[in-house]
Amino acid sequence: MRTSDRGWQLTRLTGIRTIMNDIASVDLTAGAADAWINLSPGNPSHIEEAVRMWRELTAEALDDGFVGASTRYGPSRGTGALVQAVAGYFADAYGWDIGPGNVVVGPGSQLLAFAATTLYTGQGAGGFRRLALPRLPDYAGYQGLAQDHGGVVGVDAILEPKGERDFEYRVDLAAVGRLEDVGMFLLSNPANPTGGCVTGFELGELAATAARHDAVLVVDNAYGRPFPNIAPVPYPPLWHPHVLNLFTFSKAGLPGERIAFAVGPEHLVEPIVGFLANTALHAPQLMQHAAARALATRRIDELVTTAIMPHYRAKRLVIDKLLAEAMPGGLAWRRHAGTSGMFSWLAVDEDWFDDLALYEALKERGVFIVPGRHFFLPSDNPRRTRCFRLSLSAGESDLGEGVGRMAAALRELGSHQPFVQRGDHGGRAVGGVQLQEHGADKTLDSVRGDVQ
Amino acid sequence: MRTSDRGWQLTRLTGIRTIMNDIASVDLTAGAADAWINLSPGNPSHIEEAVRMWRELTAEALDDGFVGASTRYGPSRGTGALVQAVAGYFADAYGWDIGPGNVVVGPGSQLLAFAATTLYTGQGAGGFRRLALPRLPDYAGYQGLAQDHGGVVGVDAILEPKGERDFEYRVDLAAVGRLEDVGMFLLSNPANPTGGCVTGFELGELAATAARHDAVLVVDNAYGRPFPNIAPVPYPPLWHPHVLNLFTFSKAGLPGERIAFAVGPEHLVEPIVGFLANTALHAPQLMQHAAARALATRRIDELVTTAIMPHYRAKRLVIDKLLAEAMPGGLAWRRHAGTSGMFSWLAVDEDWFDDLALYEALKERGVFIVPGRHFFLPSDNPRRTRCFRLSLSAGESDLGEGVGRMAAALRELGSHQPFVQRGDHGGRAVGGVQLQEHGADKTLDSVRGDVQ
Repeated sequence: MRTSDRGWQLTRLTGIRTIMNDIASVDLTAGAADAWINLSPGNPSHIEEAVRMWRELTAEALDDGFVGASTRYGPSRGTGALVQAVAGYFADAYGWDIGPGNVVVGPGSQLLAFAATTLYTGQGAGGFRRLALPRLPDYAGYQGLAQDHGGVVGVDAILEPKGERDFEYRVDLAAVGRLEDVGMFLLSNPANPTGGCVTGFELGELAATAARHDAVLVVDNAYGRPFPNIAPVPYPPLWHPHVLNLFTFSKAGLPGERIAFAVGPEHLVEPIVGFLANTALHAPQLMQHAAARALATRRIDELVTTAIMPHYRAKRLVIDKLLAEAMPGGLAWRRHAGTSGMFSWLAVDEDWFDDLALYEALKERGVFIVPGRHFFLPSDNPRRTRCFRLSLSAGESDLGEGVGRMAAALRELGSHQPFVQRGDHGGRAVGGVQLQEHGADKTLDSVRGDVQ
Repeated sequence: MRTSDRGWQLTRLTGIRTIMNDIASVDLTAGAADAWINLSPGNPSHIEEAVRMWRELTAEALDDGFVGASTRYGPSRGTGALVQAVAGYFADAYGWDIGPGNVVVGPGSQLLAFAATTLYTGQGAGGFRRLALPRLPDYAGYQGLAQDHGGVVGVDAILEPKGERDFEYRVDLAAVGRLEDVGMFLLSNPANPTGGCVTGFELGELAATAARHDAVLVVDNAYGRPFPNIAPVPYPPLWHPHVLNLFTFSKAGLPGERIAFAVGPEHLVEPIVGFLANTALHAPQLMQHAAARALATRRIDELVTTAIMPHYRAKRLVIDKLLAEAMPGGLAWRRHAGTSGMFSWLAVDEDWFDDLALYEALKERGVFIVPGRHFFLPSDNPRRTRCFRLSLSAGESDLGEGVGRMAAALRELGSHQPFVQRGDHGGRAVGGVQLQEHGADKTLDSVRGDVQ
């Protein structure tokens, strides 16, 4: 049976879903899972304090509020208790003068982002307008939100080396400024996959650019302030007439329950409420009550400060140490800078490096990672195939074993290249280098250089 | 900020949402609620057995499955436990040879219907195709599903009187057969608002018509078999290459949690899975586990047989008795035939009758009902303004008081018409009748006739 054009757009297997299906086809939950090390998931870590808090709050909601929450339909904006709790929390935290009209709860931030994309892109009075991802790499799931052929455009970020081993991405504001026919800008901040934030200046420029387009800038704060604060953000969420901020409880430990919300000016929030009323009715309610308790009691803050932030900071120290110890010495690799995060984002600046080749080689070794290209839009930018994402949600011993196998795979892949020709650009070390078979660390050492 | 054309479509206040907002603006939950009688809700009745079962199953899921369900992302098709339970249940109940590939769970049947509408209507290789509602009146929420201007068409059903006081709607198959450019047919069966089913013959014809269009027929079984069985259905759900069946736990007592699923051929189910993966990730999971238990243990069947069916049958007897006693004797009114249901659907065949006038008059008397026109598409069919829906979810005393005030409002409205001219068509009683002021029952008696 034939689907419509938009049906084709919205059901196609994006690259990331191909990978996810591939991973899902391996039974990682049964006994066989022992043989596998999965460094691909976007799942938050299992943090005992988070599990305990959400379990308690869910039990309380079940005891006190089941009839009102679960056995009746509710408001499309969200249950009164959660909407009030959100408004109160953000008014307290950031001094925003907001009320229920500035809040809408949805069944996950993916659906809220889909709602905004549906509403603000496509054909309209001003012609055809697109979704723009102004700082790539970014969350791969954004690419599946657009209904229109050619409905997504993106701008690759500028890679800026930091010190010996780190780098950051800077928004290519000049390129963003040249975009035309944009109805909505969207970015995760801090970003999946890098954990990095745009600067306060960049965020302001993006909002101003959105205003010039009469477009909306949707900022997905899934990893940031005020919770879960997995990666640090040096400024509060931006209140602006053209900015809709998305927040979710997923990365604070509740991804399976799909409770998220948007906060912004009423003129941006009301259309989302209308969209939900027409297409989904409302988000599930028992967990809205649990979330309302987490906010109203500020237990969410305690969880973030005493458990979530320390956990991911520790994870980052672990992975940095593992990488420093295990990575082939001569490899031209860098990691995205940061002190915390759910992921480690690595770039390998070697002509022979290909993210899919590493994915396949690691799969043969029983390890899953996510190839970097899926966090970019298709283009001939060679950098998009020279990076990959490691999830830090695995336990420490799995991380260690996974990184060890990864280093071995990198040595193996490099060793298949009899001759690596390196150009003289970007300040890298230069030279043709013969790579040896397994264990060629010392040889690789000689091709170490900056990643551009 | 301007939305796209589809944004305008998907956020507009449909008539039913105007009414719902109007009702929501009255605080029906606080002390003030005592003054109001709300016969508008689509909420299922508060049935103790249903509340108890769902509370127990949710508590069990919380005890046994919280970490796996709530603290991790899940499959877009639905959790393995629920998908397996659905496949097993339907294989047992109807002998269908199905597996997990024939099932997709979604965050409410509204979103599943939206997904199907998005995928199967709109511009495509075969031109522009529309959503068709082949038997109106039908659930008002279907009208908000289409993204395209002119994206919904409908066919008014043929009113067929039954006996003295009842009527049924028959599908106007000839008119349905004349529809062009349809990508999807959609109906609730049993219907909201009438509680009536299409005949088995009509359902087969609709499926055949869908096949001729290379379209999908989506059948929303929210009130029917196998659960909640609120209104009786004389045949099992239809398995057909062009039919996607929707089922929900909402009317079995869990509307606030938005757990629904679709069952059908894989070629119809897979696109929905893809749509969910791209736009919503997946349905909330703790309640999926509770629902899986309800199905796997067949406790849902016990609940339906011992509590839900008897409850709504009893409600129907109550409302029929109340109406028989209270309705103005001379009024040309009929009710949709049935032995059970969440609603009573009444048609008043009087030239002076207007559903919105009744709505306003009843609001002044502290009673909410739903005007009938919102269950039709806009047209000049005069019948759409001569009907209304009463919800039976209120308690018996509220129902009695509400019907009493409704009868008084009808007398009042009729009395404002100094002269009622009735045409000589459709077998009704004929004549100009002077209506008197309040309490004009006996005068109205003389204009009693068949509703056409």
